[in-house]
Amino acid sequence: MINIPRGTQDILPTETPKWRYIEDRLHAIAASFNYKEIRTPIFESTDLFARGVGDTTDIVQKEMYTFKDKGDRSITLRPEGTAAVVRSYIENKMNGDANQPIKLYYNGPMFRYERKQKGRYRQFVQFGVEAIGAENPAMDAEVIHMVYSIYKSFGLQHVKIVLNSIGDLESRNIYKEALVKHFEPHIEHFCNDCKNRLHTNPMRILDCKVDRDQPSVKNAPKITEFLNDYSLNYYNEVKRYLDILEIPYVEDANLVRGLDYYTHTAFEVMSDAEGFGAITTLCGGGRYNGLLEMLDGPKETGIGFALSIERLLLAIQAEGIELETEEAIDLYIVTMPETVDAGIKILADLRNNGIKADIDYLNRKMKGQMKQADRIHAKNTIVLGSNELESGKINVKSMETGESTEIEIEKLASFIKGEK
Amino acid sequence: MINIPRGTQDILPTETPKWRYIEDRLHAIAASFNYKEIRTPIFESTDLFARGVGDTTDIVQKEMYTFKDKGDRSITLRPEGTAAVVRSYIENKMNGDANQPIKLYYNGPMFRYERKQKGRYRQFVQFGVEAIGAENPAMDAEVIHMVYSIYKSFGLQHVKIVLNSIGDLESRNIYKEALVKHFEPHIEHFCNDCKNRLHTNPMRILDCKVDRDQPSVKNAPKITEFLNDYSLNYYNEVKRYLDILEIPYVEDANLVRGLDYYTHTAFEVMSDAEGFGAITTLCGGGRYNGLLEMLDGPKETGIGFALSIERLLLAIQAEGIELETEEAIDLYIVTMPETVDAGIKILADLRNNGIKADIDYLNRKMKGQMKQADRIHAKNTIVLGSNELESGKINVKSMETGESTEIEIEKLASFIKGEK
Repeated sequence: MINIPRGTQDILPTETPKWRYIEDRLHAIAASFNYKEIRTPIFESTDLFARGVGDTTDIVQKEMYTFKDKGDRSITLRPEGTAAVVRSYIENKMNGDANQPIKLYYNGPMFRYERKQKGRYRQFVQFGVEAIGAENPAMDAEVIHMVYSIYKSFGLQHVKIVLNSIGDLESRNIYKEALVKHFEPHIEHFCNDCKNRLHTNPMRILDCKVDRDQPSVKNAPKITEFLNDYSLNYYNEVKRYLDILEIPYVEDANLVRGLDYYTHTAFEVMSDAEGFGAITTLCGGGRYNGLLEMLDGPKETGIGFALSIERLLLAIQAEGIELETEEAIDLYIVTMPETVDAGIKILADLRNNGIKADIDYLNRKMKGQMKQADRIHAKNTIVLGSNELESGKINVKSMETGESTEIEIEKLASFIKGEK
Repeated sequence: MINIPRGTQDILPTETPKWRYIEDRLHAIAASFNYKEIRTPIFESTDLFARGVGDTTDIVQKEMYTFKDKGDRSITLRPEGTAAVVRSYIENKMNGDANQPIKLYYNGPMFRYERKQKGRYRQFVQFGVEAIGAENPAMDAEVIHMVYSIYKSFGLQHVKIVLNSIGDLESRNIYKEALVKHFEPHIEHFCNDCKNRLHTNPMRILDCKVDRDQPSVKNAPKITEFLNDYSLNYYNEVKRYLDILEIPYVEDANLVRGLDYYTHTAFEVMSDAEGFGAITTLCGGGRYNGLLEMLDGPKETGIGFALSIERLLLAIQAEGIELETEEAIDLYIVTMPETVDAGIKILADLRNNGIKADIDYLNRKMKGQMKQADRIHAKNTIVLGSNELESGKINVKSMETGESTEIEIEKLASFIKGEK
């Protein structure tokens, strides 16, 4: 037997209604915020991610599905969404559009070859937004407001927004020097990755999962103490807008981004719902003023976030929230051998009117058909016999109330529609 | 600059609303017919397609994106949807479910490394259904009804359903012998592919694109003359149900499927709309009673179809049909420098109420903001000055009628909602 590829999952019919419910909600919220959908290909040139995600990152070094196509081009299944959206922005010259800023969102599968663990899949779905073309603290606040609206709209109580500023490049260069000085005397106690990071990228020591409990991590200098005037003012304005929007947040100076093109605002959404066991990141975002230029694009600035639908679902589950999905069909038609043809004709008429209806295709006896109607939670049933066909009238039985209503068969569609 | 991979496309914000419109419609029609959504991974074990699509097919031999993952497993980006759905059916033992038949649908990207040509992409999107577990002509008719409903729902006039039966294995073995006898004297005039097909798979000569105008193709024996009693009766019943459902179709005895697990009903939807230049296949489907066993599954039978969303869009365009997508925002808020904060607060309140609203983030002057409102087709605008904030009242200007209505600022959300 051939199995599903390791680390991937089928989303089965018991689960897909939840996915559609969530995704419909995300599309609606994106529309409220006037973000427009973009769909980029599943794979891109490997170069795009090496440059756009950063070739020193774990993603690029260890986790990409990279291969040669039949034209000998190196392509990679996208491990995240931002690089491709920015590639499309540049390639389609969206900076030339009079309608600015360009506010985009996407929703689709991403791929990372990670070690298999609970709730982690090698194919997972991300919803994300990118707002390009406005370096304005109110823009940052809008993006965070959208994230907040999303989690709040599902009624989640155990999520919090964690906020930081990593300043501009100038602020960060001064900060990095201070970090090197701070960590140098302790570096022998750190993991090998951190030893390498000390001189290449000391900020990444701050969010190392191995060393996060080291005393020198806890008392390291904070980026916020090194922000220059512009960066500090920018950060204060973002926070002021969040206050105006009544969005709660906590600050965490250790929330950093390791790559040079990240600037100013960095944020995450975390959940401490009991079901997770440990605090879990549901969403990450931030400003990336240097990314477009890094990809040979115009000197425009951007901010965005990406959230995992799998983790959103887990958070919803962890807090015991039921999504109101609607799967029941409106009517099940029970037939006798002599009324099958007429039943199929009625069925088609109902479906042509947008009514969810079904019938038996397995020659089940009447009792078996009633059971099937029950099993699929049909809201109503009719039993079509010769008498009904002759009289043109039929009893519609509501499976909820048990009540029957006699109506003319040709008015069935409008009757069921009226019930909805 | 890094470009999009060859043969793929970005679906830009000008196009995505059409895609969502179409896909929402497809989901709704699938629900009417009581089909449930399934999502399988983007890639599968290469074996699955070699066996499930057929290793003598062009798809498997020439067109697959196949590569090794980091665990040295051969995986392939899915070139079509049926094999993976059947794999999932078998792996999840859906034949054990009491709710039969299992009626599934999917919608997602597929990948074939084809020669670049107009309207053909290496990544394209297919919507498809599979109904597994009922060998019943009414089941076949239901699937064809669904296809018909889809194209009809968009108002397409130039599509037709082409129908055939390729019978069961017994009928087909007798037919194949007759074909070999028929083609043998003429085979020297055929292409090399057909020369090879003569003894391995003579039915595929009938739909060879190179040789389709050869006289011996046109006067070849027809499969319908070789159907045994069961197959002939099955085909007649399918046609009888299509008549009951008032679904028009034309028969074409040359519509064949080259693989052994295909049985009985085969159909296509074709368009002869002028915009296409030539007759174009929009959708293909048929019964595959042998596929599940071929994949080591239970002895269940199935039928399905797959349609390309790209071609559906082209057909809609070719017939000059406008999709009623809704992209305009409900309200644009024009601010003065002294009312930006208040404007952002009002904006958030509107969005929290599900209203599509936006504001300027580029410090545009009032005139520039009005232009922006116009550019994005805002349905209404407000101009927020200090006077409005003081009085708590504001004029809502409808951009359609030009009329202004004075209302209290705090009733803005309910006013706009009432307008919708």
